[in-house]
Amino acid sequence: MEIQLAVAKVVKYGSLESGDTLEIVERPMGGVSCVLGDARSSGTSAKSVSSMVVRKVISLLSDGVRDGAAARAASDFLFMEKGGTCSVYLNILSADLQTQTLVISRNNPTPVFISQSDQIECISSESNPVGQERNIRPSITEISLFPRTTVVLYTDGVMRAGERFGQSIEFCSLIQAYLDEQEPSAQYIADALLSHALRLDQNQPNDDMSVVVLRVIEKAEDNIRRLTVKLPFSSQTTIYD
Amino acid sequence: MEIQLAVAKVVKYGSLESGDTLEIVERPMGGVSCVLGDARSSGTSAKSVSSMVVRKVISLLSDGVRDGAAARAASDFLFMEKGGTCSVYLNILSADLQTQTLVISRNNPTPVFISQSDQIECISSESNPVGQERNIRPSITEISLFPRTTVVLYTDGVMRAGERFGQSIEFCSLIQAYLDEQEPSAQYIADALLSHALRLDQNQPNDDMSVVVLRVIEKAEDNIRRLTVKLPFSSQTTIYD
Repeated sequence: MEIQLAVAKVVKYGSLESGDTLEIVERPMGGVSCVLGDARSSGTSAKSVSSMVVRKVISLLSDGVRDGAAARAASDFLFMEKGGTCSVYLNILSADLQTQTLVISRNNPTPVFISQSDQIECISSESNPVGQERNIRPSITEISLFPRTTVVLYTDGVMRAGERFGQSIEFCSLIQAYLDEQEPSAQYIADALLSHALRLDQNQPNDDMSVVVLRVIEKAEDNIRRLTVKLPFSSQTTIYD
Repeated sequence: MEIQLAVAKVVKYGSLESGDTLEIVERPMGGVSCVLGDARSSGTSAKSVSSMVVRKVISLLSDGVRDGAAARAASDFLFMEKGGTCSVYLNILSADLQTQTLVISRNNPTPVFISQSDQIECISSESNPVGQERNIRPSITEISLFPRTTVVLYTDGVMRAGERFGQSIEFCSLIQAYLDEQEPSAQYIADALLSHALRLDQNQPNDDMSVVVLRVIEKAEDNIRRLTVKLPFSSQTTIYD
């Protein structure tokens, strides 16, 4: 089997820096985790807050701390640092090879979609951002690491795409349409979903947008682990998106 | 412009776990760093040592510490923890958007190849692994972030591929051949080099093998950041490679 994890990420139109921070880390007992932090607003100060939270979570996960405990710790840490004046939406998506499960940890009201055996489930339970108050808990969903499982999550910039123009995305049917294609890769789904959101915002994204897709594929191509990063940048300035 | 960073990684034949650890992290002032640790031997204990070193470096880089200082700190940390009984080969490869440079930090005698303007340079100066003694320094090379630059580095498992069968790899001409193809992606070069090494070891790698390729591309496809992970695994056990 093979785990495919893909990310596509774009900065708000006119903003110098994305307020979304995303990092991946290998789990010490096997597997991979993806941590996504979305600070309220865009730009350098938002980036600094989301990146502080994501770094704390990554560091705890790589020490073997469980996802739920890492989210709580990051919340307390942000609350202690900023006294409740800053909050960050946080998602942790882990493929844990030790427990053979996928663990989805949400401190983010934006829904997460899970497709297993031709059925798409939408997790959209109440969920609070980290750092706003004491005793914040993540909402955690754990499912078996079965082949043909797909998890899709995104930041609120994607959810609200097109809102200015009176349009919205029907995520469930859109994701179903992508999955109906011939063995779509995780990267294909992430790219397609982000492109769709960008089109609705007329290619001038109204907020930072990030899409994360994880797929469990029945048959691995080979026994090789792969990792690819593509980072567009401008040579004139330190602007990056 | 676009930075492409690609990794291909395989475990030693018959080993449960790779002694090579590789992580990437976003640089807080813009850009990306890739950290590769190669512990002597393979298996769980080697993994635990290489991962300890890589985690330390990643954590320092994400706090904004410079690459050279992070390598020194990781060396002292490993020396303090293990009293000089363990050593780890360490490479840090960074695309720093703030200084608009590529920084190659080596604590690894395995050579690093840099191609700029149709000329391939091989960096193979003396270099000591981290953790073996006090005051270990990295050997650092810094070059401008020009388009059409390619950096290739790998672990000694790749360098020694085919040694058992009296064969060896002519890296310089092999990399030149890949670069002569039509706009090869970083992932294509990493995959091709690893496949070549695997063939020389008759598909039973004699050591853990990892290849890292970074390319600076003149024209970015679009303004979207992308990240892809492919992780083959077996569902019966926690073996992964």
